[in-house]
Amino acid sequence: MTNRVFLGLVHYPVYNKNMELVTTSVTNLDIHDIARCAMTYGLLKYYIIHPAQTQQRLINEIIDHWQSGYGAIYNPDRKTALDLVDLQPTIEKVREKILGEYPGTLFTIATDARIYPNTVSYKKMREMIHTSEQKNYLLLFGTGWGMAKDAIAEADIILEPIYGVGDYNHLSVRSAVAIILDRLLGDK
Amino acid sequence: MTNRVFLGLVHYPVYNKNMELVTTSVTNLDIHDIARCAMTYGLLKYYIIHPAQTQQRLINEIIDHWQSGYGAIYNPDRKTALDLVDLQPTIEKVREKILGEYPGTLFTIATDARIYPNTVSYKKMREMIHTSEQKNYLLLFGTGWGMAKDAIAEADIILEPIYGVGDYNHLSVRSAVAIILDRLLGDK
Repeated sequence: MTNRVFLGLVHYPVYNKNMELVTTSVTNLDIHDIARCAMTYGLLKYYIIHPAQTQQRLINEIIDHWQSGYGAIYNPDRKTALDLVDLQPTIEKVREKILGEYPGTLFTIATDARIYPNTVSYKKMREMIHTSEQKNYLLLFGTGWGMAKDAIAEADIILEPIYGVGDYNHLSVRSAVAIILDRLLGDK
Repeated sequence: MTNRVFLGLVHYPVYNKNMELVTTSVTNLDIHDIARCAMTYGLLKYYIIHPAQTQQRLINEIIDHWQSGYGAIYNPDRKTALDLVDLQPTIEKVREKILGEYPGTLFTIATDARIYPNTVSYKKMREMIHTSEQKNYLLLFGTGWGMAKDAIAEADIILEPIYGVGDYNHLSVRSAVAIILDRLLGDK
């Protein structure tokens, strides 16, 4: 695989449980769990997307603790994974940043628990990533109750929901990230 | 699939980062994330295995909040998933409980980031679960730096480590559970 895969965790625009447009707070374990997944599956960057500067400061403090504070000595594996983390205020800024560094084609891939007309299977997406060359793929995950419809509509590709057994599919975003990275990039 | 799959999250005996035998504390998100995964993939029960009564009380309080407190109204999807949670003091007690309810064969499956002589691939394990009939499978996951060697040695089957891309494989137990349940039970 010579393609470049990036991940963005979206805190705005997302829905709350009443399907109202909100900005969610950052969850500490979202930073760690997803950074470790991103590292395991060879992603180039893990963007935490949040518009508020106060939240960005909080995230930076957490990262600092593990990067250069006591945490770096206590658990170097976390430090390595957090090297991948980058904070950006909007999805658009993330796209600019990637294209600035890696000019060319950038596919934005949305993930959602709902189905859309342009929904693509994991098998198809995996093939795309592994057979095309020198392209950029940005996987977006929504926090809260999922990414806003408008943001999803702007994506080039939408991944199908994760089906387990039966009707229940209320996975945490952390679990969804782990499963989707494994389906698309795991050693099969 | 007519087999019964159970999951156990082991807090003792596990290692800390210096490979000393310890009992870990319960992490709030381990309860939720893993319960939601267990529900998604059709598991029959999610056992939280912890020997200390004080920790068992704490876990019960958290579960109560989501089962009958404000949490049950705020987020019914969490309530449903937590119905699967059961607290047990030891792995042995979990085995007794399963066999008491579902007499017959019970395979204990350990998961670990290390390789053992009786390590089995995910493909093989998936076939076993899907082709055999009326058997019980207990998947054990260690918290901290993984389950103690003696506990792993007592397992009938050991699953291979999760390989991503490269050498880094320090996934959180939450991510490992999500990926392994998807590999063994996900809709392919």
